[in-house]
Amino acid sequence: MEARTVWLEGDVVKLIDQRLLPGEFKIFEARDYKAVGLAISDMVVRGAPAIGATAAYGMAQAQLQGRDLQEVARYLRSTRPTGHDLFYATELMLEAAREGKDLVKVAEEYAADSVRRCRQIGIHGLEVVPEGSRVLTHCNAGALATVDYGTALAPIRAAKEKGRGVFVFVDETRPRLQGSKLTAWELEQEGIDHAIIADNAAGLLMTRGEVDLVIVGADRIAGNGDVANKIGTYEKAVLARENGIPFYVAAPVSTFDFSISSGKEIPIEERGEDEVKEVGKEVIAPRGSRARNPAFDLTPARYVAGYITELGILKPQDLSLLRAEAKSKGK
Amino acid sequence: MEARTVWLEGDVVKLIDQRLLPGEFKIFEARDYKAVGLAISDMVVRGAPAIGATAAYGMAQAQLQGRDLQEVARYLRSTRPTGHDLFYATELMLEAAREGKDLVKVAEEYAADSVRRCRQIGIHGLEVVPEGSRVLTHCNAGALATVDYGTALAPIRAAKEKGRGVFVFVDETRPRLQGSKLTAWELEQEGIDHAIIADNAAGLLMTRGEVDLVIVGADRIAGNGDVANKIGTYEKAVLARENGIPFYVAAPVSTFDFSISSGKEIPIEERGEDEVKEVGKEVIAPRGSRARNPAFDLTPARYVAGYITELGILKPQDLSLLRAEAKSKGK
Repeated sequence: MEARTVWLEGDVVKLIDQRLLPGEFKIFEARDYKAVGLAISDMVVRGAPAIGATAAYGMAQAQLQGRDLQEVARYLRSTRPTGHDLFYATELMLEAAREGKDLVKVAEEYAADSVRRCRQIGIHGLEVVPEGSRVLTHCNAGALATVDYGTALAPIRAAKEKGRGVFVFVDETRPRLQGSKLTAWELEQEGIDHAIIADNAAGLLMTRGEVDLVIVGADRIAGNGDVANKIGTYEKAVLARENGIPFYVAAPVSTFDFSISSGKEIPIEERGEDEVKEVGKEVIAPRGSRARNPAFDLTPARYVAGYITELGILKPQDLSLLRAEAKSKGK
Repeated sequence: MEARTVWLEGDVVKLIDQRLLPGEFKIFEARDYKAVGLAISDMVVRGAPAIGATAAYGMAQAQLQGRDLQEVARYLRSTRPTGHDLFYATELMLEAAREGKDLVKVAEEYAADSVRRCRQIGIHGLEVVPEGSRVLTHCNAGALATVDYGTALAPIRAAKEKGRGVFVFVDETRPRLQGSKLTAWELEQEGIDHAIIADNAAGLLMTRGEVDLVIVGADRIAGNGDVANKIGTYEKAVLARENGIPFYVAAPVSTFDFSISSGKEIPIEERGEDEVKEVGKEVIAPRGSRARNPAFDLTPARYVAGYITELGILKPQDLSLLRAEAKSKGK
């Protein structure tokens, strides 16, 4: 892919419109902070790191347009509650603004840094993706979920670059189908062998020994290592452990939220019923039926074999070190 | 519902066309055994007990039309491999034909008996659905999956008839969406409170204590109690056990296949990729991507709290008695 997920041109935040993939490749132009907020809440862009970068660019745009940065930050933070990078990025930008910095430069550096971190995640993750690996992933934690290169897909890309054979089972990830629409699209672009499966099929494949490991991304990781990620992640973690398959979470350190000690404190977004009752123009449920649509779930740290970060693969018990470091930085 | 799922009029096998629900209620007319076979393979009718009754009527039709019953039986058996009732019903009909019986009468009795058994499943299942129960179910094991009344939905219907409050979480059940399209439709018709959820959401709801028990149907149960049922059932069984929630399988005794000693011997149907890559007219995956589509999975007996049958709720350890009884009947 040539294009990044999000970038700034003049004072326009430009984004790949992920609502239209894989059918159509189109750029969404957000000309003010309200449009940036809409891009996040309506899922033009999704994935915690990509949302973080979008918010950073949105703050830079707001500075260019002479807006009240506190107000813009407050607005952007109200768009989606679960992922941590949104809060991390807006806080960082407010701090940079207080120091009188040019937020365009800071946002560009934030985005470039995000890509570097993803590449490091790929390099560290190589260790768990040997030749012939069959990896299951859930949702999209690829280039589209980040600025580029991805988190869960980074070790897979890195393995492919090393010439290793690797096969990916792609959970379609209902209700928004980020697996079949986005992850499969990325893998196809990269020429990486894969098969899309209904979310229901992963368990059977695991019992048959067809899955060697699971790698997922994360929207927020609590201080104790509990992971908030796309709805269904917890199901895969439980099934992986039941079948003796290692379950890895790939995420940059910015995903860790040491201000909370357990996943129970992470707010879980509940989205509209229509995402469950309709697929595009197809109505798939009776009009009179209700639906529930929690968008994320929580995977307790005990199911996680390791966190693949830009600093290396951390075990749940290593997180206290990270936490101490974060504290010393006053985060 | 006034109409049964399947019945015979003259020599025409009539079926509710389940491919069109919940949008459209239409009757499919199968005028010969090829059409009956198509109704099964293309899923006009689905659900092991309903397929069994359809096959019974198909055999009666074949006798009326003077066809070679062995050939028709062979053809019908080739339509879907996993469910047991199809094999059970055709065998029963061949035996009745050898005894010189009128297969129309035998098929009518088979269908009426199937409904009686479902009602007994409901009565026995009342024990596990007390006032206020919040039940999770997967796929459709309701009236549409049987001749009438259902298996997994039978205890829920019975509880409702007793005036008990009951709430049902309906797994949408990708890829064919039998949960959102059929189970939700039945529950709405009956005025039973429910919410459709993405298959991914059940785990989160279980961890939050929002699910009291799980009841599913079965397509075939091996002699040791292993259960073949709609893809994703195994995932729910594992999650239920992980969260201390009882997992029940509701099925008539005809679902038990004592000719095989373990679930590993049950053939798992793999259906076409398009069921995963398309939803109605919506294409939801890149053209170049492959998909895998196993239609059933296996739940080992150790996850099952009980089998709700027309004879009562059996524990896995009770199955040896059933087996002995079946053997003494020469089954």
